Amino acid sequence: MAKITPRRAPPKFGRAEYQARIERARAAMTEAKLDAIMVTSQPNLPYFAGAELPIAWESPTRPWHLVVPRKGDPVAVIPYSGEREWRETSWIADLRMWRSPNPANEGLDILAKTFDEIPRVHGRIGCELGPESRLIMTPGDLMRLKDMMRPIEMADCALLVTRLRFVKSKAEIAHQRHICRIVSDAFADLPKLFKPGITDADLVRRLQADILLRGADKTPYMVIGSGKGGYDSTSMGPIGRKLAKGDVFQIDTGSRWGFYFSDFCRNYAVGKPSDEARRAYDTLWRATEAGIKAARPGNTSADLFRAQAKVIQDSGYAVNDIGRMGHGLGRNLTEPPSNKLDDNTVLIENATMTIEPSLAFGRGRTMVHEENLVVTPAGGKLLTTRAPREMWVLRA
Amino acid sequence: MAKITPRRAPPKFGRAEYQARIERARAAMTEAKLDAIMVTSQPNLPYFAGAELPIAWESPTRPWHLVVPRKGDPVAVIPYSGEREWRETSWIADLRMWRSPNPANEGLDILAKTFDEIPRVHGRIGCELGPESRLIMTPGDLMRLKDMMRPIEMADCALLVTRLRFVKSKAEIAHQRHICRIVSDAFADLPKLFKPGITDADLVRRLQADILLRGADKTPYMVIGSGKGGYDSTSMGPIGRKLAKGDVFQIDTGSRWGFYFSDFCRNYAVGKPSDEARRAYDTLWRATEAGIKAARPGNTSADLFRAQAKVIQDSGYAVNDIGRMGHGLGRNLTEPPSNKLDDNTVLIENATMTIEPSLAFGRGRTMVHEENLVVTPAGGKLLTTRAPREMWVLRA
Repeated sequence: MAKITPRRAPPKFGRAEYQARIERARAAMTEAKLDAIMVTSQPNLPYFAGAELPIAWESPTRPWHLVVPRKGDPVAVIPYSGEREWRETSWIADLRMWRSPNPANEGLDILAKTFDEIPRVHGRIGCELGPESRLIMTPGDLMRLKDMMRPIEMADCALLVTRLRFVKSKAEIAHQRHICRIVSDAFADLPKLFKPGITDADLVRRLQADILLRGADKTPYMVIGSGKGGYDSTSMGPIGRKLAKGDVFQIDTGSRWGFYFSDFCRNYAVGKPSDEARRAYDTLWRATEAGIKAARPGNTSADLFRAQAKVIQDSGYAVNDIGRMGHGLGRNLTEPPSNKLDDNTVLIENATMTIEPSLAFGRGRTMVHEENLVVTPAGGKLLTTRAPREMWVLRA
Repeated sequence: MAKITPRRAPPKFGRAEYQARIERARAAMTEAKLDAIMVTSQPNLPYFAGAELPIAWESPTRPWHLVVPRKGDPVAVIPYSGEREWRETSWIADLRMWRSPNPANEGLDILAKTFDEIPRVHGRIGCELGPESRLIMTPGDLMRLKDMMRPIEMADCALLVTRLRFVKSKAEIAHQRHICRIVSDAFADLPKLFKPGITDADLVRRLQADILLRGADKTPYMVIGSGKGGYDSTSMGPIGRKLAKGDVFQIDTGSRWGFYFSDFCRNYAVGKPSDEARRAYDTLWRATEAGIKAARPGNTSADLFRAQAKVIQDSGYAVNDIGRMGHGLGRNLTEPPSNKLDDNTVLIENATMTIEPSLAFGRGRTMVHEENLVVTPAGGKLLTTRAPREMWVLRA
């Protein structure tokens, strides 16, 4: 392999911001009585390390680990094959490596030794076990590690890291504003991509290409629902259906720039929509407005649900059963908290979130609206360009 | 929520193919002494269920589970919010649902009850614990489930399912040929997207858009390495570098159609490449050829490594330390087996794989070639359009 040369690409957010993230994590570790945390997931590992590892997220062959102790320098336990990519994109210099693939031992002995060297106060190390954790190591290896690290206890740190990530820095908000702007512009120009009779599959291909060419990195998520007078699905891929006069459709997309997501949808009518569809749209537009206004520090995610639900119910509709009306947003398409009655997460200034009311109407139709915002004392500050007051009408 | 109407989109591969997959899994369960398997991952769940759930793979909030017993009908344990999408795209009718998000109990009680109803012969149920498993449930919930299901033992079924998936049906091979064709054509037309001075980031954006517009569903993976006379990284994203005269670069992409991947790269020179780069290219072209010829049933993945390594070493180069020279290919970007000396997986007719030799040359340069193929008695049958015999030269 080529000799490793010095780093070309500077850490995306600057050394100080990564250091600040680590310090916040350490304060949370002290509170949670943890001597260290180990993160492996796509949102969490680069959040602290700044490492960009496309292969890590798409190929399940090799695991990647970052150990952040409460005291002392962070340690990366990664495959040799990723050394160059790590050194080029991460500020963390303590690498401990092994030759992978090696299913018999994918770095577990190095991890156990690393844990053993950490000053032991609480005898507990946090791993991503809890809600929303999707590991980049196998569950079997995690269970083996749990046995190997005894007497050190494996505790959960999922929510600890999620809460840190909930509040964004200026640079992170700029990332999210950038991708929200790109996608907002593409939605506004969708009429140029549309022609009557185009299939839902072709339309979403064109829109994805357009979003890329406007500067996005990826569009991991794009779904479309369509039907005469309205759609009945809010989270399904295209089915090859032709879009024609009388249809109402919605496209929802999670697109990414610099590993930060936008997540919002827009509604379109092919030709003039029915009064029934327009009334549903108007109600959801106002419910969204109520959600945006309520996005102030001190309010809870349950308050965001209630603000949206009130408008929907006051207009004579039932609240939908998707289970929530928006959520946190950041390095994953969806993040905690959930805007639902039993989630009492207190909103914090500079947290970023989605407002996402939906309702059922007509004969088996559903409709959804969504915007992305930053929580501020004056209410939500939009990252997206607000959906038009009336539904976009495409030429039939 | 709208009432569920009958399925619109037929199961992609037809009922008989899904049934055949289930029957093969059952034979493997009998051999492995398992009463059932539970799968949750993006490649494994739809492999059996045919369900298309874009939200499940991008949002980590809600888990999705499929239980396939050795006797009796498969059972899906999924959130209510996904009922419509499931019924529209899956042939499996036994749905057991709960209101999610509910971090306190994301369907675990339903799973434990489902396991309890399964006729108990071996007292073991297989879960995705082993190599290459990336779950769509949290590790904490998996550990809780392991306790809840006692006395039934949780065993590993990762390799069992991977081995089933290694060999492809005609329909699966057609999927892979389709996406390999699309990407091959886009690589061949890359000179139309290139102009001297374009950044690596802009070039891969354009190429991704082109691949989409040619009919691909997604390009989850695209990396580019570039440098004067050659590149030094084979798995890193763009860094904003301008591509200019004297550069050699490679682009490697994993693109997807109908949830099946292609995974291969191509090399380009901006202006005439050096003799050194041309000799490296020639060596890898011949190493690839040797790998393709060796891709016969009965040979092992270690044999594929040896065939490629011999050409590289006979030409006076050292074998690279990426750890392998190709791998299985299918519903993940990379799948077992690995073409490496200690992987003695026996190749089977109609398995699909990559051949991927690489070598170090010059001052800190590396080069990689890659093709995708089907294993046949006459050697590998290419899914990709073979890379040109000499490096593509772009106008400087």
